[in-house]
Amino acid sequence: MAKNTLIVFSGDLDRAMAAMIIANGSAAMGNEVTMFYTFWGLNLLRKPEKVKVEKTFMDKMFGRMMPRGPEKAKLSKMHMGGMGTRMMKNTMTKKNVQTLPQLMESAQALGVKMVACTMSMDVMGITKEELIDDIEYAGVASYLAEADEGNVNLFV
Amino acid sequence: MAKNTLIVFSGDLDRAMAAMIIANGSAAMGNEVTMFYTFWGLNLLRKPEKVKVEKTFMDKMFGRMMPRGPEKAKLSKMHMGGMGTRMMKNTMTKKNVQTLPQLMESAQALGVKMVACTMSMDVMGITKEELIDDIEYAGVASYLAEADEGNVNLFV
Amino acid sequence: MAKNTLIVFSGDLDRAMAAMIIANGSAAMGNEVTMFYTFWGLNLLRKPEKVKVEKTFMDKMFGRMMPRGPEKAKLSKMHMGGMGTRMMKNTMTKKNVQTLPQLMESAQALGVKMVACTMSMDVMGITKEELIDDIEYAGVASYLAEADEGNVNLFV
Repeated sequence: MAKNTLIVFSGDLDRAMAAMIIANGSAAMGNEVTMFYTFWGLNLLRKPEKVKVEKTFMDKMFGRMMPRGPEKAKLSKMHMGGMGTRMMKNTMTKKNVQTLPQLMESAQALGVKMVACTMSMDVMGITKEELIDDIEYAGVASYLAEADEGNVNLFV
Repeated sequence: MAKNTLIVFSGDLDRAMAAMIIANGSAAMGNEVTMFYTFWGLNLLRKPEKVKVEKTFMDKMFGRMMPRGPEKAKLSKMHMGGMGTRMMKNTMTKKNVQTLPQLMESAQALGVKMVACTMSMDVMGITKEELIDDIEYAGVASYLAEADEGNVNLFV
Repeated sequence: MAKNTLIVFSGDLDRAMAAMIIANGSAAMGNEVTMFYTFWGLNLLRKPEKVKVEKTFMDKMFGRMMPRGPEKAKLSKMHMGGMGTRMMKNTMTKKNVQTLPQLMESAQALGVKMVACTMSMDVMGITKEELIDDIEYAGVASYLAEADEGNVNLFV
């Protein structure tokens, strides 16, 4: 059994989809897969609803400016004020490609380990209550230990 | 002999050049190199001329909005309405750096395997007739099998 | 002792920070780490002050348009004319996260090898005098030789 790790740095719809398609494919082949969500990627782990948490003014600002969950992710190119992203989503649905939220659920069902980068959480002022369930929390040392055992380690 | 794989996710001129320079360098050293073109990267494999194919309205729209071939690729930064990209191309030509189309040709001549991601083709409504010759077609499982044998696997 | 390589392609503040955090973490764990600065990433190695060098008109233009050193790096998202980048920097300082210039210094102190891509230097018309001290100079063949020995090789 091989081991794969993916650093999900980007929160863009297209990059996140690429990461999730690789993760699902790898897990389906019986591999052990770990995804580290860091920087903008952390937004993909946020619950879609607003969670009430005590925060500093700055942390509140960041929280409001950044998308909550995969449903809100935008294309890195051709977003075109929302039209391009909508077009792409429609097309994918018509062609029976799983949506990003579906891919994330299916990955979790397949046992893909999802890890939120605690340093990014701290910087962006995001708390555990705001993130989805069944994920883990760790820092760069933990990532490196896992990647060291992996043979396909990607930064997306 | 080592094996390298590159996922060419981006269709940007600068990222595509980086990928091609690595692929050419690696192949020249005698390594086995496979490049997987997916999402925006798929546009790099498109023939520069318009190919007549039956398509849905949506697929036609996508096809028209996205660049056909490496000649049309733009810088991810400092494109500046075309001026930056033109400047960069001129400079590279003056300094005897191979252009992106030349790098792609030379990679194929060196035996670099170019693979079009069939799922991306499906989503973007791109057919085999629209892509250049001497490439292969595969999905994520095929990528993972190759990357598993590789020791340098990059996502560009 | 494991070996890690990072291609620092991007000069964006967020991506550069991710690369540096991984590099510092890995070096602190006793690993051998090499960072290859190429394309926009090369700008991170530039001295902050203007260095007088004979250049062609084109090279001067490029030199002026691109940021000199990590202090000038901008966020890839939410830069918002400087406001977002400033906000993020302030937040990181308040939360005791090392700044990008500090991370680079600390990486060098930990023995991380920093390599400037000579081909990028040539294309951008950047000379050794304009880059910081204690770095090395090499091309893609040298990168590939090192990555071949590494087990975690990322393209950032």
